[in-house]
Amino acid sequence: MDVAGTVGELRLALTDARSSGRTVGFVPTMGALHVGHRSLIESARRASDVVVVSIFVNPTQFGPGEDFGAYPRQVEADLGVCRELGVDVVFLPSVDEVYPDGWGTVVGVPELSGVLCGASRAGHFDGVATVVARLFGLVRSDLAFFGEKDFQQLRIIERMSRDLALGVRIVRCETVRESGGLAVSSRNSYLSESERKRAASLYRAMRSAVDAIRRGERDSSVLVERMRAEISSAGDCDSECDVEYVSIVDSDTLRSLETVTENARICVAARVGGVRLIDNVAVDDAVATR
Amino acid sequence: MDVAGTVGELRLALTDARSSGRTVGFVPTMGALHVGHRSLIESARRASDVVVVSIFVNPTQFGPGEDFGAYPRQVEADLGVCRELGVDVVFLPSVDEVYPDGWGTVVGVPELSGVLCGASRAGHFDGVATVVARLFGLVRSDLAFFGEKDFQQLRIIERMSRDLALGVRIVRCETVRESGGLAVSSRNSYLSESERKRAASLYRAMRSAVDAIRRGERDSSVLVERMRAEISSAGDCDSECDVEYVSIVDSDTLRSLETVTENARICVAARVGGVRLIDNVAVDDAVATR
Repeated sequence: MDVAGTVGELRLALTDARSSGRTVGFVPTMGALHVGHRSLIESARRASDVVVVSIFVNPTQFGPGEDFGAYPRQVEADLGVCRELGVDVVFLPSVDEVYPDGWGTVVGVPELSGVLCGASRAGHFDGVATVVARLFGLVRSDLAFFGEKDFQQLRIIERMSRDLALGVRIVRCETVRESGGLAVSSRNSYLSESERKRAASLYRAMRSAVDAIRRGERDSSVLVERMRAEISSAGDCDSECDVEYVSIVDSDTLRSLETVTENARICVAARVGGVRLIDNVAVDDAVATR
Repeated sequence: MDVAGTVGELRLALTDARSSGRTVGFVPTMGALHVGHRSLIESARRASDVVVVSIFVNPTQFGPGEDFGAYPRQVEADLGVCRELGVDVVFLPSVDEVYPDGWGTVVGVPELSGVLCGASRAGHFDGVATVVARLFGLVRSDLAFFGEKDFQQLRIIERMSRDLALGVRIVRCETVRESGGLAVSSRNSYLSESERKRAASLYRAMRSAVDAIRRGERDSSVLVERMRAEISSAGDCDSECDVEYVSIVDSDTLRSLETVTENARICVAARVGGVRLIDNVAVDDAVATR
């Protein structure tokens, strides 16, 4: 496994892969690799001849007061995971390598960035789109793998890649969940055991809504109110759970839907014990089976 | 010569060029090809195996009240020029082909876009950077050719291409001038004969400033005041000439310089008879010969 710390080393490591016309699959990460990332890397491994993983905690996608400094960093463990899963190249750049002297470009998808998480995280998605555009340019993979857990991010990257004809096919990978339903996330490491249980209410509430949709409910405001109530009141109330948003949106445009359609997606953000968690589920089956 | 109206036709036309590893040179234009464009295409022809020219009047880089509707369009004549100069592929897309349904991405270089022309043309350079990023993605050339006449645009494209690692080398081409010194531009077609003469004062004033620098003047404010006076008072005053800006800036950052350096560039914008004209010159030689 090659570990490239600079753009030059990355280019060198990829020269063979590119020249021989093999399929390159790319998994961009911020490290702190968990079973969700493992699943992305395994998907990349199955679909590609050469697998590239980047590990870079991107400062420009953290707002003031967010957890850039505290974000979990565990490079040696991450490299172990990559080795175990048969990754070919790990790109592990410094901030200066990603944003060289004189840096000045911003990429954004404004229409998709002001809603949901973007409403409370100004600039976050511009930071994400910009760093992903640069990483795509550096890696030049055929495929890139993203989890559905960060659904808004996924949509923004899909649209950006298509609009700028970046030549990379975005592969959506299903959210990996703990047994209680909690979506796996690097930020789960901030949660206590009781908060972890509490956090599973996000997924439970969404599942309840999908069941209600299956039974015929199509009014978003009714469903949203029920989910808010279920999340706020859930379980043993020794852990706080503040709902930031519960929204039913169109899966392409991320616009709020008054009436649930086949293309709807339920998206939730809440703070459990001060830790911001997000999750989402598609409702397609539930509408289709009606 | 292939004329591609769609992205699919463009891809088809470029398949051979790409697979055989030949060098592809790209000249993006808004049509109304003049001797300045000819010079770009000739540079591309000399440096590349395959020359691609795009002709697309990009609506997103025109502000409200600007001349999008009136901008000169002469496709048949342009295709004739391309044929004559041995262009291999002309990309002549519709607006829908460049901005397909669901379009939503914006690329910008904020630091370089708020000054000079950007101060009065909000959004203009985001429009330019975005369309060029998309065209680069579609064409995937090795080289792309831009005139120094639009110097701010050139810098923005250089920085964007480097930051996003777009894999294309930007080739700077010297401004082509009429015998009186007026920089060749598609918008010159709006000028009457007397306005054309009047417009040459922009270049004359910059040349005078370069002479003054050669003689030892380094104070930007002194030079700028002299240029403003020379442009405003020039010639037979039957044509109006309103200076928009005269500025001496660093060639990389476009920041205003109090003291002229080797890396300085003089940039001018003015309206002659209502037509907005821009021009610029480097001062490197003048400082170096001191």
